[in-house]
Amino acid sequence: MIMEKDISVLEETINRLNFRFEALQKITQLINLASNFEQVLDEVMRLTIELVNAQAGVVILIDQTTGELSSHITIGGRPREELGEEPKWKLNKGVMGAILKVGEPAIISDASEYPIFRDELSKAIRCTVINALCVPLKRKGETLGVLEVFNKKLSTEESKEGDKGVAPFTAEDQKLIVSLSNEIVMVIENAMLFNERERKVVELDNLLKATEAIASAMQLDPLLDTIMERGMKVMDAEGCSVLLVDEKEKKLQFVAASGAKKEEVKKLSLNMGEGVAGWVAQNDQPLLIDDVSKDDRFSKKIDETLTQKTKSLICVPLKVKERTIGVMEVMNKRGDRTFTERDMVLFKPLSAQAAVAIERAKLYEDLEDMYISTVKSLAAAIDAKDPYTRGHSERVTRFAMLIAKELGLDDKTQRDVQLCGLLHDVGKIGVPISVLRKKDKLTDEDWKHIRRHPVLGAEIISPIAQLKELIPNIRHHHERYDGKGYPDKLKGEDIPLISRILAVADTFDALTSERPYRSGLADKAALEEMEVVKGTQLDPACVEVFVTGYRKGFIMREE
Amino acid sequence: MIMEKDISVLEETINRLNFRFEALQKITQLINLASNFEQVLDEVMRLTIELVNAQAGVVILIDQTTGELSSHITIGGRPREELGEEPKWKLNKGVMGAILKVGEPAIISDASEYPIFRDELSKAIRCTVINALCVPLKRKGETLGVLEVFNKKLSTEESKEGDKGVAPFTAEDQKLIVSLSNEIVMVIENAMLFNERERKVVELDNLLKATEAIASAMQLDPLLDTIMERGMKVMDAEGCSVLLVDEKEKKLQFVAASGAKKEEVKKLSLNMGEGVAGWVAQNDQPLLIDDVSKDDRFSKKIDETLTQKTKSLICVPLKVKERTIGVMEVMNKRGDRTFTERDMVLFKPLSAQAAVAIERAKLYEDLEDMYISTVKSLAAAIDAKDPYTRGHSERVTRFAMLIAKELGLDDKTQRDVQLCGLLHDVGKIGVPISVLRKKDKLTDEDWKHIRRHPVLGAEIISPIAQLKELIPNIRHHHERYDGKGYPDKLKGEDIPLISRILAVADTFDALTSERPYRSGLADKAALEEMEVVKGTQLDPACVEVFVTGYRKGFIMREE
Repeated sequence: MIMEKDISVLEETINRLNFRFEALQKITQLINLASNFEQVLDEVMRLTIELVNAQAGVVILIDQTTGELSSHITIGGRPREELGEEPKWKLNKGVMGAILKVGEPAIISDASEYPIFRDELSKAIRCTVINALCVPLKRKGETLGVLEVFNKKLSTEESKEGDKGVAPFTAEDQKLIVSLSNEIVMVIENAMLFNERERKVVELDNLLKATEAIASAMQLDPLLDTIMERGMKVMDAEGCSVLLVDEKEKKLQFVAASGAKKEEVKKLSLNMGEGVAGWVAQNDQPLLIDDVSKDDRFSKKIDETLTQKTKSLICVPLKVKERTIGVMEVMNKRGDRTFTERDMVLFKPLSAQAAVAIERAKLYEDLEDMYISTVKSLAAAIDAKDPYTRGHSERVTRFAMLIAKELGLDDKTQRDVQLCGLLHDVGKIGVPISVLRKKDKLTDEDWKHIRRHPVLGAEIISPIAQLKELIPNIRHHHERYDGKGYPDKLKGEDIPLISRILAVADTFDALTSERPYRSGLADKAALEEMEVVKGTQLDPACVEVFVTGYRKGFIMREE
Repeated sequence: MIMEKDISVLEETINRLNFRFEALQKITQLINLASNFEQVLDEVMRLTIELVNAQAGVVILIDQTTGELSSHITIGGRPREELGEEPKWKLNKGVMGAILKVGEPAIISDASEYPIFRDELSKAIRCTVINALCVPLKRKGETLGVLEVFNKKLSTEESKEGDKGVAPFTAEDQKLIVSLSNEIVMVIENAMLFNERERKVVELDNLLKATEAIASAMQLDPLLDTIMERGMKVMDAEGCSVLLVDEKEKKLQFVAASGAKKEEVKKLSLNMGEGVAGWVAQNDQPLLIDDVSKDDRFSKKIDETLTQKTKSLICVPLKVKERTIGVMEVMNKRGDRTFTERDMVLFKPLSAQAAVAIERAKLYEDLEDMYISTVKSLAAAIDAKDPYTRGHSERVTRFAMLIAKELGLDDKTQRDVQLCGLLHDVGKIGVPISVLRKKDKLTDEDWKHIRRHPVLGAEIISPIAQLKELIPNIRHHHERYDGKGYPDKLKGEDIPLISRILAVADTFDALTSERPYRSGLADKAALEEMEVVKGTQLDPACVEVFVTGYRKGFIMREE
């Protein structure tokens, strides 16, 4: 006997199957949103809430590496801005703990029994949680999280005007969500994976850009600034500092710290083993510290001096070919977060790059320094042939650089002035000592020798390709502004600027030095004398800035 | 009246809905495979074949940027190895073109009408294609590809023993696949996006590693090797070359080319505007060429000299702060592919890094070169005080470096030998010209002056921090192996090795040079004389390698 009832049961089954199929299709559609994780969670919840006609819902996920819980609440049809703070879910406590432990779905008919529902969650969704349906999200037996919906709405027939009551969640509701839970897990996991990959791309891209910026810096100081700036950006940190090993002093010298003045920073150092940085350098191991106040290794001294407050930090050794040249640290992850192992993984290649670049910049500066020192030493040896000109080239260089600075010349020209200052009298190699040391009046022959030294100096440096441009500066440093100098009787602006600068510096040193034939003038008298020859012997502009600079106290007489 | 028939229709509907639901679930499951694109395609097809009971199927996708078609054939239950070559599908031709144009599904009852099914596809699946069901894959109205299944199998009731016939695809089959096609598109797109992201991660990672390697190289030659090696790896190219602008000659000089010897490469250059590289340098624009044989700019000269065969290439200008310092090119994408715009996007940051690193290495080498030139010039000026020692320091340096090389000393020590050679007589600055030029017998006072020069030389370089280690080498270059030298009467191995080397080199140059009191010996006589004083005045080992080196012809007398 076929009954009407049978037919209606079958028809109801067909309706339910169609509904389920559509629900599944809707969930599957969410794959399209994969690139926006938050939106995927929101849509998953909105759909679930709709399927069982609930008021609100939450998806709580367990971080598979840290075990931490994160949640995402959705209230059907209401914007996220209206939500309160998410409750602090605990993995092993309360109702959440129970569901995760048992791993089975549950209908909770009286939510007021559970403080987290009654208090925290009710506050978050701005509405009292009365009942709940909880379904664990599993993949291959492993629980990844829980999906919970709250307060099933009364159907139109059940609800009366002004009724604030809720209906109970049914076994059918539970069955429906469980039947879709596999797909929900997949959609969420897919979005997580995507999110993860996307984050990796952003991280690598930041790292690559940092590496490019680091590779471009040649000099140490701008390099350190770049390293700090990029270090903070890549690591999303509030601060960054770099310390280098001082081999001689067996110390860790601060060379850069974000937010602090260079001069202050350079006064700071740690002993090997002292503080976190000292520990890292001594043990040659990276450190990740969540809260430095709980770590005995942390030394407060640095925070106090730099008036900063370190909470969490990552500190790694800077290594070049197995040799530790210093340490680099970032501190306080922005947004009040702490650093994770993942940050450490990111920090290592960055610090490796920084180490290589620092070593490179130091090598370059060392070579530059060696160049200047060598020229200085040889110039000093030439000066020393004549006891009256001992230290002459170095002093002239100092005076000339002051003039160059006061004239506002660019860095490259200032460097040229320095080299020319050191090399201007190199031609004296060829002047006999007897002439240089002569106390009697010089003969014409002696004068010939002396007057040859600028030409000889220019000749000596002429084979050095990199100094080609400087040759005229040396050749003409004994020209006079009025055209009565030597070797070429150049006049005024025809004399190269650097030669005019050297002439002023040279004259001041000559006037203030002992000579075989007279004693040296006091600085003040020398300056007066120079005012007199301003415009005849010397370039007036150069004399003026020199005198101004002298008055400002820029010239420290070491003698 | 309720009929049995109604019930069975309803039951059949329920079965079909359940089947569809399960099919949808199975397709959704494939999201889990997202990280393996090929596997996703394979599983999608396997599932589709199964759903309609077909023999084989293919999914054909349109590349949304290039419009190219790629396909993926699957034969139900058979491994991929058994497949033949995929047919060459054409976007606007034949049955494929028709389906893509109309964008509607179609059942093809006689596949033999279509050559691509009858011939190419039949060959690929090793079985004649008899009929087909084609369903376009669309997203938001846009056609992304086609899914096709072939040869519906006879059901158990229909098939007789040995029957090789096929059943016709039904409207129900078509409806089923169409109903799932949205989800299929999503799964495939998701996998494509994933694939894309994954590829981006690999690319960025390769680029980052390349950048790290490039940043570590200090000297130009190893740097160029690194740039080539990494360039080929990142770009998956068969070859790579680097050309630098020669400002003086207005040329593009080859400095590196993979697979060619350095010396050969360095003989190659192009005029500005000549060849692809010359065009890129002159126009300051990157070029991507699929087939150089069809490009007028390509010059065969380089391929001929380097015996290589360029097909496709990417060539970009190397720029440092808006200045073009050269070009870099990669050629022939491995696997017989051509480079794409995507490769260009990847090549740009790599070449930018290379440019910065090359400029940096050149600056460093330039500074090193300037240092040596300057020391050489000053040493030459000191030598020139005495007409008999003109060029002495440079010759001694050359002889000393030969000995160092023959002794197998490391690069750093060889560099030290060079510096010591240039600086060994720097103390002569302090020796009066009159003494140096004296033709008469030297007085005791004169000898005092002369014997002081090694000490003075050591003193002159003592303020140079970087040369600290070299001071003893200068001080002791006039010690004798038997302890009878000056200033400290050191003996044998107590004399620093570099000093012993300098003594041999110095002696050879002294013996072969004109002196006020005698004319210079011929080289052969000088070598004989040195054999005599070997073990008394000079270190025998140093003399031996020098004599050997001389005999091998390693000493080119330029005079």
